[in-house]
Amino acid sequence: MRSVGIVTPQAMHFAEPLPLRSGAQLADYTLVYETYGTLNADASNAVLVCHALNASHHVAGEHADRPGSTGWWDNLVGPGKPLDTDRFFVIGVNNPGSCFGSTGPMHANPDPQAQGRPYGADFPVVTVEDWVDAQARLVERLGIRQLAAVLGGSLGGMQALAWTLRYPERLRHCVAVATAPSLSAQNIAFNEVARRAIVTDPDFHGGHFYAHGVVPKRGLRVARMIGHITYLSDDSMEAKFGRALREAELSYSTQAIEFQIESYLRHQGDKFSEYFDANTYLLITRALDYFDPARDAGGDLAAAFRPARDTRFLVVSFTTDWRFSPARSREIVKALVDNRTRVSYAEIDAPHGHDAFLLEDPRYHGVMRAYFDRVATEVGQ
Amino acid sequence: MRSVGIVTPQAMHFAEPLPLRSGAQLADYTLVYETYGTLNADASNAVLVCHALNASHHVAGEHADRPGSTGWWDNLVGPGKPLDTDRFFVIGVNNPGSCFGSTGPMHANPDPQAQGRPYGADFPVVTVEDWVDAQARLVERLGIRQLAAVLGGSLGGMQALAWTLRYPERLRHCVAVATAPSLSAQNIAFNEVARRAIVTDPDFHGGHFYAHGVVPKRGLRVARMIGHITYLSDDSMEAKFGRALREAELSYSTQAIEFQIESYLRHQGDKFSEYFDANTYLLITRALDYFDPARDAGGDLAAAFRPARDTRFLVVSFTTDWRFSPARSREIVKALVDNRTRVSYAEIDAPHGHDAFLLEDPRYHGVMRAYFDRVATEVGQ
Repeated sequence: MRSVGIVTPQAMHFAEPLPLRSGAQLADYTLVYETYGTLNADASNAVLVCHALNASHHVAGEHADRPGSTGWWDNLVGPGKPLDTDRFFVIGVNNPGSCFGSTGPMHANPDPQAQGRPYGADFPVVTVEDWVDAQARLVERLGIRQLAAVLGGSLGGMQALAWTLRYPERLRHCVAVATAPSLSAQNIAFNEVARRAIVTDPDFHGGHFYAHGVVPKRGLRVARMIGHITYLSDDSMEAKFGRALREAELSYSTQAIEFQIESYLRHQGDKFSEYFDANTYLLITRALDYFDPARDAGGDLAAAFRPARDTRFLVVSFTTDWRFSPARSREIVKALVDNRTRVSYAEIDAPHGHDAFLLEDPRYHGVMRAYFDRVATEVGQ
Repeated sequence: MRSVGIVTPQAMHFAEPLPLRSGAQLADYTLVYETYGTLNADASNAVLVCHALNASHHVAGEHADRPGSTGWWDNLVGPGKPLDTDRFFVIGVNNPGSCFGSTGPMHANPDPQAQGRPYGADFPVVTVEDWVDAQARLVERLGIRQLAAVLGGSLGGMQALAWTLRYPERLRHCVAVATAPSLSAQNIAFNEVARRAIVTDPDFHGGHFYAHGVVPKRGLRVARMIGHITYLSDDSMEAKFGRALREAELSYSTQAIEFQIESYLRHQGDKFSEYFDANTYLLITRALDYFDPARDAGGDLAAAFRPARDTRFLVVSFTTDWRFSPARSREIVKALVDNRTRVSYAEIDAPHGHDAFLLEDPRYHGVMRAYFDRVATEVGQ
């Protein structure tokens, strides 16, 4: 399959502050983004892709200066791929608070009292709705009055849902994959353990570790290991690692690596702690925790989705996803059906757990291809 | 329901070293234990109760000096209770390596090079089989040639199973509750994250923190929080906490407690870090990881259980237990049935996840009562 090839991130600066759900505001900020494909004459073929916890604006293709830096959804987005860049103009955008280029906690805090130091723990708490507001400004600046679709998986799916509630007239379709209408108590619990691991790491320094020239790597490692367990299904972990040993014989040690799964997890934790920002981890898990459109509608999810009555939805879940199980997607579908909103729902029998949304499963990609084919036809592509 | 009342722990010293599965040995050691009820004339009514990760010899009753110190299985063990101390002589024993009185990492290392310092990280790695060997010596010293039953839940259930393989002639019944024939990759993964949180805590000092007058509380807190999530079912956590907030309004903070579940988990972590030993946590999670009787039999669990052909088994699992799911108990049952071993199996429809084995569920306790009633009759009680 062809790729979009070499891509170059772009940056757009916004001088007007972004009002946030918390009541605070984000002073002037920059969004980093990428685009693939060509915007058509009436600007009707744009698809916005929203990223999840650990991803960025770099959805497809490669960066010239980093061979092997393939975009995180490259198997889905490209020429001839399910989200076909020969027909669509696809936008990937990095959210504020992230650590991949857009304004985040590692950037200078404009508050005069900060004297040019990084935001650190003082970066304002951002929500899914705030991100959507920031994205909407970018889309407007790009000259797009209505998106053909907003697409996201996991936390990205929550952003796609929030678009339909805040800007229903500015998108035709919402494609929400492996997501949920809110976190469960268990989801919040895992986030909280990860956050505790980070903030109790002595190298965290209350979130102002940049000034100390250290990174709370211990906490980040633990956070990533916990996250990773919840991304994989029990079965796929069993199939991939089982009880396989690293060496032929047990060494009987509490600290040595005995099992392959331990080696794999440590490696994932180490890698993550090298590039991910600790404050970003806190901010993004909090955005996950806070997302709860039903709360704003007195606990009634159908009422919450009433503004989206004219949007068309594709909701996709995966049978072995225990982080955001199919039951959570069905809550979304039920709310939409209660509103007589047009929704297609696919529950994909895939073994890979939550991570399935990033993988190339033929049934999953078949559904995505068919849906985007319909969207393309609608917008004359 | 009546309790066994005030109980007094006892201690027994063993001068003969305990050979361990690792090839090392445990020098002279002490086991702390409690007993409830009266051993009958032919010493046929003894039941050994094996403890899990976070428990001890203190199974039932209260300690005179600690009001409210109710034993961890007091709802099951006592006069007129399912394991009836009017009919049985029940023994609870603390395993070596633990932190509740038996010889453990906080005790003096007898190696002359240690110069009287605590074992710390040098405490030898102990396995389920080693614990069973230690327990067998205690049982022998108590003048019991054959136990009426060995009973345990979770890691305690693994010990009960190991008894049937190592000392089949020394027990009549094995009662294995909420357990598994080995840990899955996911189980090992959660243990490994907890261990990494502990050993990377700067206060761990390579396991020799006693000398520094500190305790790796950060790591212990994270370990306990992770453990706690896996003990509860997703549904029971949702029913108990859901998305309930701690205050009426959100405070929009990455570090404040927003949700009740966060408050609960932090409290559990704090409590645990006050009393549990970090080296013990490493040792006990490793004992869990290593337990795998099938490995010794070329991967064939039925072959592994062949020595236990004349033991009778009760295996109990709980529908919402995702740590040791019913499927894992059914593996044990299948291996026993393949050997034509007598086994009763109860899969209890209970909402509480893994923790259900500690709770007073009428169907669960009904099964236990009926089974122990049969055992009592067999031994003439």
